[in-house]
Order: sequence, then structure tokens, then C-alpha cells
Amino acid sequence: MQTIDNLNTIVSNYFESNKFEGNPAELYDPINYILGLGGKRVRPLMVLMSYKLFKDDVEKALPLAQAIEVFHNFTLIHDDIMDKAPLRRGEETVHIKWDDNIAILSGDAMLIKAYQLLEELESSQLKTILPVFSKTAIEVCEGQQYDMNFETRNDVTIDQYVEMISLKTSVLLGAAMKIGALGADAEESEANFLYDFGKFLGLAFQLQDDYLDLYGDPNKFGKRIGGDVVANKKTFLTLKAFLKADKSTEQELKELFSTNNLNFAEEEKKINRVREIFTALDVVDNMKEEINKYYNNAIIALYELNVEENKKEELLQFAQNLIKRDV
Amino acid sequence: MQTIDNLNTIVSNYFESNKFEGNPAELYDPINYILGLGGKRVRPLMVLMSYKLFKDDVEKALPLAQAIEVFHNFTLIHDDIMDKAPLRRGEETVHIKWDDNIAILSGDAMLIKAYQLLEELESSQLKTILPVFSKTAIEVCEGQQYDMNFETRNDVTIDQYVEMISLKTSVLLGAAMKIGALGADAEESEANFLYDFGKFLGLAFQLQDDYLDLYGDPNKFGKRIGGDVVANKKTFLTLKAFLKADKSTEQELKELFSTNNLNFAEEEKKINRVREIFTALDVVDNMKEEINKYYNNAIIALYELNVEENKKEELLQFAQNLIKRDV
Repeated sequence: MQTIDNLNTIVSNYFESNKFEGNPAELYDPINYILGLGGKRVRPLMVLMSYKLFKDDVEKALPLAQAIEVFHNFTLIHDDIMDKAPLRRGEETVHIKWDDNIAILSGDAMLIKAYQLLEELESSQLKTILPVFSKTAIEVCEGQQYDMNFETRNDVTIDQYVEMISLKTSVLLGAAMKIGALGADAEESEANFLYDFGKFLGLAFQLQDDYLDLYGDPNKFGKRIGGDVVANKKTFLTLKAFLKADKSTEQELKELFSTNNLNFAEEEKKINRVREIFTALDVVDNMKEEINKYYNNAIIALYELNVEENKKEELLQFAQNLIKRDV
Repeated sequence: MQTIDNLNTIVSNYFESNKFEGNPAELYDPINYILGLGGKRVRPLMVLMSYKLFKDDVEKALPLAQAIEVFHNFTLIHDDIMDKAPLRRGEETVHIKWDDNIAILSGDAMLIKAYQLLEELESSQLKTILPVFSKTAIEVCEGQQYDMNFETRNDVTIDQYVEMISLKTSVLLGAAMKIGALGADAEESEANFLYDFGKFLGLAFQLQDDYLDLYGDPNKFGKRIGGDVVANKKTFLTLKAFLKADKSTEQELKELFSTNNLNFAEEEKKINRVREIFTALDVVDNMKEEINKYYNNAIIALYELNVEENKKEELLQFAQNLIKRDV
């Protein structure tokens, strides 16, 4: 049995030897650029781990793994245009390094390339996997649109927020697991348990990411601590704090979350005050409960899965590494 | 045998009863909006006509016809952002009516919706048709990128221009024919003759559109006469004129095609002078020869096609209507 590190190497080597060639360069260079920025490659790894529960020849799942990763990176290119983000993984975003038009069009081409990677499937698998892929892709678009809508709304509920992050990020992790399983001819019911495992793990991961944004170790988190607060993003913590706050604290939070264009010192002051309020309101405990709820749902789905118990070990370890990381 | 008008009605009714429902509204409204603007529906009609050469139950080809039309309209939404176009079919473009972000994301969703329409195919057809669809989709992106690149290049050859318009517009007409045929289980070789018919007809059509831009009847053309000249677009006519011009005329053309921000009277003067030069250089005859060359190639492909001759009549009539329209 390959370890997770081994699978990572297999994925990296495959991606390295399967770049996207073609003309004009302005269309293909951005594709290879963003894929070359690396990242944790969580999604392709999930495809392979899921496949490996049912079949040993994991290299057969590599086009599927790449399809999921290429799709994910297409969403990053387009999201970065919409968010006007200057940096991605510490490097210039595609729309900054080239321009908006090239970012739109190379993103479009990536989405098509992701579909092209499914062509290698035999016809019966294609018939099963294509709808899972497209349904997920549409849901990711819906999640991104909700995220944009929420920026200007003040009435977002926690349920709506969780639904938004589920669509925007978690369903793709679910689909990575499900598609890996279907690629190995697993039963639909088993593939669905793995979908749930991936989706719930994705929810726990995204909520933890929201938590780390404000409470993470600056040396380990890799982004500025408090970035969501500076951007007035309404994450789980914020929404919960608004719910629990008394009138005067609610008013203070409203004021804090409507300030813009602060200088760095003012931003740090704002972040610290928000953190104080959150701590006083105990919303971190609510957050941790919520993370645990989704994490446990993921583990239950894994428990229900009908494969030998020792084969589940790797996924359990993967889930633990993803969620129990240093804060 | 249904007439072309009958097929048009079948297409319109199907599109009307198969709109795209979903939430959030900001994602789905633009999709139904652009599809509701109408247009000639040339591509879905081609899918049905091609299917009907081999099988009678044309309604089975309607999801394929809609897939091609939805894909085409996805490209319109994204192209209009890139071109900063305010109007499409006389109405506001999606990025103007909503905003750039919504236009990017609803375009993305449309591309995925186009793929979802292929899901209704049985698995063996899916395996054959999906690669044709994706290959064409990528080529359309390549064509759009070449078109953008050509805006700032002064060394574009006529061959490169024809290759660009082939990718940007003609291959999709070829694919519409090919996919219609494959949907009716036609032989690959027959499907390829129909691809050539569609592609060459598309080239003739696009070149004629370039011609009509400068020489069309303003009451029939539906756009301002001379729009390409005002925008300094290097179409076949312009490229040919540069090739045939003597030194002094070449210099005058260079100057004419580098003017910007003229007032309306100056623009009209520029258009008239360009038309005079083109007429003096006889480039319209060259253009007509070129259009005829591609039109004849389309008819030859139809001739080679192995179906009963009387079944080809409708396609021949369609080709004649498309190309021999009033100028």
C-alpha cells in the first residue's frame, strides 16, 4: 500500500509530464502557470485514495485526478478576477500577470481541458462520471455567486453561510472521492459514502480555515492573520457573534464590520478588538463544535463504507492531518 | 420531410420549454436572458438537418441542438466582456445589464450546462460525441485568443486571418453538423463530410459578413455599415488591400487604419475613403472569389456524402439562403 507521500509523488510526476501544449501561447501559458504554482493537491490525492480502496492500479485514476485539479484551478483563475485578488499562492494572479481577458479565456479553456481529461474513460464509466462532474461544477458556480451576493447582504443566516461554503468548496472534495470510487467501478452506494466523507471533511476544513484566519499562528498560516475581518467577510464566527451579542456589542460589531480603507495600525486594532469580542462571546467554542460535528459526520460516512477496515486507515489519517493541524 | 421553417419552430418550442431553472437568480437569469434574445438559431438548425439525413425522429437531437446553442451563447457572453461590447442583438449585453463578474460566472455556468445537455446521450454516443464537442470548444477559445492577439499585430497574413475565423466561428458550424450526424449513428466518414460542409459554409458566411460590413444594405444588415473599418479591424478585404496597394496607397491605408476617436462625420469620411480604395484595388472581386471557393468546398463535401440525393436538397437550399442573401 502506497503511503500518502507516495501518492503525492505519483500525482506530481504525472502533472509534470502532462502539461497543456498548444497555441496561441497566451491561452496555454496561464494554464501551465497556475498549475505550476503547486498547492497541496488535496483533491487529486483524494481521487487516488478513493480509487485505491477498490483497485490497486492507481495510475489509471490519474487523468481523473488531473481533471479535478484542472477544474479547481479554473475556478481559482476566475474567482481571482472577480475578487480582484493580486496574489495566489504568493505569486501574481493570472489576471495581474497577463490581463483580465486572458484570464477569462484561459480559464474557459481550462474548464474544457478538465472535461477532455474525462475522455479517456471507457464509455460506461464516462456515462456515470460525467454527470457527477458537471453537477458539482454547477454547484461550485452557484456557491461563488452566493458568496458574491452575501458581500452586500446583512441578513445572511448561519445555515445559508454553511450552504454557501458547502457549494463553493466542499462538494468538489466530495466529488473527488466519488469520482475516484466510480473510476474503480465501485458500487454507487459506496461512492456516495465517500462523497459524504469528502463533503463533510471539506466543510470542517473550510470552517477551520475561517477560524485560523483569526486565531492561527502567523508563521504557519501563510496568510495575514485577520484578513477576513479586514475585508468585513461574514464567516461563521462573525455570524455567530452577531447572534450572541447584546445590543451594545452588536452595535460595536456593526461599526467594526463597516470600516474600510483603514491604515495598517487601525486594521490591527480592529482585528484585535474583534478577537476580544469573539473570545468574550465564546464563539470559538461554537465554531469548534461545528467543526467537530462535520468531522464526525465524515468519519461516520467512512465507518459505513463497505471496504476492509485496514484500507480505511489511510483516509482516517488523511482526515486527521487535514483537520487536526497546528493552530 | 419537414421544411426548414418547421425545424425552426421545433427548435424554438423546445428552447422555450427547456429554460434553465435554479438559484441564485444572478447566475441563471443571464443565461435565460441571452438565450431569449433569439438570433437566427443557425447552429441548432444545422444539428437537426444533419440528424435528419439519417433518422426521422429529429426531436431526439434537440438536446444536442440546445447544447451547441448554449455553448455558442456562452462564447457570446464572454466575448462581449472582452470586447467591451454594449449591445448584443440590439439589447444590452449581460456584463452591461448586470456586471462583469456575473457575466463571467453565468458564462461559466452555461459552458457546464452545455455539457450537461450531452448527458442524455446513450453511453456509446457520449463516448463519440463528447470529444468532438470539447475539441471544437477549445478551438473556439484559440480563435478568440488569436483574434485578440491580431488587434495589436501588423503582420497578420491572409492565411492566418482565415485560420483565425475558421477557429473562432467555422469549426462550431462543422461540429453542429458532425454531432447531429453522430447523434443519428451515422458513420464517422459521413459525419466528417458534414463537418466539412459546415466548416466551409461557415468560412464563406464569415467572409461574406466581413464584406457586408462595408458593402451591405444599411436597411438589411442590422449593424452600422463600416463598423469594422471604424474599429480598424483587419479583415480579408483590408489585408488584401494592403497586399495590392502601391507605396503611396499603402501609406494612406496605414494612416486611415490608425485613426481613433473620430467624430461621426470623420468616421463616415474614413469609411467612404476606405471603400473607394478597396474598389479601386478590386479587392471585392478577390473577396468574392474567396467566398465562392469555400462555398464550393462546402458543396463538394455535400456531393461526396453518401445519402440519397433528394435528402441533400434541404442542406443545399440552406447553404444558398445563408450565402446568397441580399447584399
